[in-house]
Amino acid sequence: MNLMKTLLPGLALVVSFTAAAKAHLVLQTDFGLKDGAVSAMRGVIFQVDDQLQVNDLSHEIPAFNIWEASYRLMQVVPYWKKGTVFVSVVDPGVGSARKSVVARLKSGHLVVTPDNGTLTHVAHHLGIEQLRQIDDKKLRLRGSEQSHTFHGRDLYAHVGAMLASGRLKFEQVGTLATDPHRALEFTAPTWAEGVLSGNVPVLDPQYGNVWTNIPSELAEKMRLATGELYRVQIFEDNHLIYSRVIPFHRTFGDVPVGNDLIYLNSLLNLSFAVNQGNFAKLRNVKSGAGWTVKVSRP
Amino acid sequence: MNLMKTLLPGLALVVSFTAAAKAHLVLQTDFGLKDGAVSAMRGVIFQVDDQLQVNDLSHEIPAFNIWEASYRLMQVVPYWKKGTVFVSVVDPGVGSARKSVVARLKSGHLVVTPDNGTLTHVAHHLGIEQLRQIDDKKLRLRGSEQSHTFHGRDLYAHVGAMLASGRLKFEQVGTLATDPHRALEFTAPTWAEGVLSGNVPVLDPQYGNVWTNIPSELAEKMRLATGELYRVQIFEDNHLIYSRVIPFHRTFGDVPVGNDLIYLNSLLNLSFAVNQGNFAKLRNVKSGAGWTVKVSRP
Amino acid sequence: MNLMKTLLPGLALVVSFTAAAKAHLVLQTDFGLKDGAVSAMRGVIFQVDDQLQVNDLSHEIPAFNIWEASYRLMQVVPYWKKGTVFVSVVDPGVGSARKSVVARLKSGHLVVTPDNGTLTHVAHHLGIEQLRQIDDKKLRLRGSEQSHTFHGRDLYAHVGAMLASGRLKFEQVGTLATDPHRALEFTAPTWAEGVLSGNVPVLDPQYGNVWTNIPSELAEKMRLATGELYRVQIFEDNHLIYSRVIPFHRTFGDVPVGNDLIYLNSLLNLSFAVNQGNFAKLRNVKSGAGWTVKVSRP
Repeated sequence: MNLMKTLLPGLALVVSFTAAAKAHLVLQTDFGLKDGAVSAMRGVIFQVDDQLQVNDLSHEIPAFNIWEASYRLMQVVPYWKKGTVFVSVVDPGVGSARKSVVARLKSGHLVVTPDNGTLTHVAHHLGIEQLRQIDDKKLRLRGSEQSHTFHGRDLYAHVGAMLASGRLKFEQVGTLATDPHRALEFTAPTWAEGVLSGNVPVLDPQYGNVWTNIPSELAEKMRLATGELYRVQIFEDNHLIYSRVIPFHRTFGDVPVGNDLIYLNSLLNLSFAVNQGNFAKLRNVKSGAGWTVKVSRP
Repeated sequence: MNLMKTLLPGLALVVSFTAAAKAHLVLQTDFGLKDGAVSAMRGVIFQVDDQLQVNDLSHEIPAFNIWEASYRLMQVVPYWKKGTVFVSVVDPGVGSARKSVVARLKSGHLVVTPDNGTLTHVAHHLGIEQLRQIDDKKLRLRGSEQSHTFHGRDLYAHVGAMLASGRLKFEQVGTLATDPHRALEFTAPTWAEGVLSGNVPVLDPQYGNVWTNIPSELAEKMRLATGELYRVQIFEDNHLIYSRVIPFHRTFGDVPVGNDLIYLNSLLNLSFAVNQGNFAKLRNVKSGAGWTVKVSRP
Repeated sequence: MNLMKTLLPGLALVVSFTAAAKAHLVLQTDFGLKDGAVSAMRGVIFQVDDQLQVNDLSHEIPAFNIWEASYRLMQVVPYWKKGTVFVSVVDPGVGSARKSVVARLKSGHLVVTPDNGTLTHVAHHLGIEQLRQIDDKKLRLRGSEQSHTFHGRDLYAHVGAMLASGRLKFEQVGTLATDPHRALEFTAPTWAEGVLSGNVPVLDPQYGNVWTNIPSELAEKMRLATGELYRVQIFEDNHLIYSRVIPFHRTFGDVPVGNDLIYLNSLLNLSFAVNQGNFAKLRNVKSGAGWTVKVSRP
């Protein structure tokens, strides 16, 4: 940003400020960090503007797992400033007919991504204000025309950097998308006949805590109370895998080491953990469309 | 920092400088990088001040391993500028009665952390000048009151960012702690009757080198000399696991590939390695309280 | 950069600009991110200049694998701005007689590294303009003289930061190297009698795609055409491991999920993949000097 300030009649001083007006750029991929893919994206970004602030959401999204990419975006986006630009590339259909888009969320964040389902959770929880299809012939990295398998570097990083630097306005990305974003199927949680039902969208991979999609507001209908006992049942394809009566607590240390509990995770969704243990491993629970849960009074 | 400079009588020019006066912020957790936890922390940090410089120590501390977090801090802190703010969150007791503190080290660094043992090594090696208990009701992220299991995001990242940005002074963190920091037990290394004794606090996880807590100054009492042979014994719970006569050298390449050696590691502590091999795996050695070593003349 | 601007006779205003004129610094090691090694390097870097922009190429290069470090550099360097300083430390001979060098590439990038083969690929593909041997007594971190096993921190990070900050000019690094850089052996790809021959320098570790060293220009001699079938043979030490007739396509999604294809990777080299599968695992293929490939018309 150039600031022109008239100090005295006839005397103008141009002071150039760095960064202040620029948006942060946050990258998410399933590329891993073992090779140079993410670094090549960063190189492209700094060619656009070498003063950008670039951060990582995660590059350890399981390969091709669009669902998890979508979930992680929803988990993280609300904690960043309005205007932050997210580039999310889990792209098994790279180079095929799937569209490339930029979504402006109602929360004021931008997401640059292939339109393959990544927007499912942010659209549901935060809302998409406007969706534009990227004019990829115009906006891809110059010289990358022969490359068809690395749009993360050749297109998405480049467009993300242009947006974050302020060189490209959201409106200049391309025309308004004629169709809505592509959404993955998911089942909404319910409360009926004394039973909370939901599913296991993801695990907390580091600790093995099991997260559900049942928010605290829905759990309040059951008047879930600290220290009280509830029956928790977990099913894989309607097959009962886990059934125990365990307490609801605020935090792990409220039960002895090695014991199970229900708690509200960092997104305020109902979750299950073993204090200082790995619930998922110990109780053989995984995540995904087939994994459902029921919570009721014992 | 706003710098007010009177250029001429009656004329004031405000020039805003970025970053220069701000401290770097360095994050350490056991969260891993597979989900969005660390990125949520960074989002919170940049909401406080979007010009901060944020770095990672490691997010791959083994889950719940406070000892290793403490060791890694000690390993790294001295290499950073005075004033750098470290946020260390290995926090199995999150949400329970354990205190949240900021330590000002005698070296001029700050550490924001749950007071659960993380400060053990920096307190011993660098010294704590002052310890303050965080006023967490006042200083936690606004809107996070219902969340009890992610103080890394809701409290520590937020306080770290406030300190690094200069918005909060150390003295404003909270009252002086009435008790000393919580310290984990550890055995000091000794030199007696021709034998150096110590333990194996951590491994060098990438290469499998085995680090001891015996510093070079103590080793000098034995007049450890390059190229000479020494008997090394390693015990697990007083059970002899390894006993060989091996040379002391300056660096790995001073012995043939596949051979064992004693050397001084990057902290100038006595260590054992196999040139281009993994000592820990090949010789079945691990780290921890039960692992001790003896070094003597053969 | 200090900018001295005479505003009025007798009145000088010094305005200090951050970063703008500084080069980015990019780090590559085989240290992993489980301990504090990389963070110690960053601490050293910011002691030199706390406004530098530091990035990572990868720290997950397999331990001691100089070949892969060399390959990853070549893969990434061209995507960064001229003037970017790369510090690459895969250094099994640390502390031994191997030289420490800085290479100025014809592309305008600098590489700071032990001269043990890391420069092989950038030298071949981009060219070395000038090679200087680091005057390590003069340029190593003060106080690190007793440390012989962590030149990444004590020497290379320090020199890289001095160069990136502009405090040290390339010409001041040390004298011109009298010998050429140390190069690892590799076999050039060939086209003869209707057969394209090459080898497998690395895998794409995240997805299991198998990359060859056969560039698209060489493949054009066979008039490789989209949608047509070719016989692909892969050998380990001249032992046939894989032999199938598979199509050449622009991108993975051009074949059904689970099917094999030939494609041009992000470096425009011939590569093999399974759409949404792991070719290397499914077809038992690895990388390295012993792994060769042949592609011909069926």
